[in-house]
Amino acid sequence: MPRADDVEDQTRKARKHLATNLIVMRREKGWSQEDLALEAGLHRTFVAHVERGARNISLDNIERLAGVLGVETYELLVPFSGEK
Amino acid sequence: MPRADDVEDQTRKARKHLATNLIVMRREKGWSQEDLALEAGLHRTFVAHVERGARNISLDNIERLAGVLGVETYELLVPFSGEK
Repeated sequence: MPRADDVEDQTRKARKHLATNLIVMRREKGWSQEDLALEAGLHRTFVAHVERGARNISLDNIERLAGVLGVETYELLVPFSGEK
Repeated sequence: MPRADDVEDQTRKARKHLATNLIVMRREKGWSQEDLALEAGLHRTFVAHVERGARNISLDNIERLAGVLGVETYELLVPFSGEK
């Protein structure tokens, strides 16, 4: 029986959705990772890790990224449809 | 000029949306905070704090809560419409 602690090792779909949306939306603005990091007041390395799904980002920081990208926080977590 | 560090003190809309959705969805299941915490493998106090918007929860834990509530992670952050 899987324990709740294993959940994050099983899927982490949310991290992947966030990573894809971040990359797509950042590029639409013509921003580098460093540009996005500067705008959001975060470290470039942190942003790079989030874009690889390697970091368990907090809600406040997701909201901060959404704010500078001009979208609602939940939009960063919607599965990427590929259309736009 | 507001600094990025101030953003979390200004609005924290995302925390409020999450809190409202958690409470509504939990009650729809007839669960107490303790029930939800047990299902998600989290501490009851932690869930209580998140439902008050007093806690900066991580994405992995939001995903965990969404999983036991049977919704997609982003659905916990969509502004609550009041309809259902």
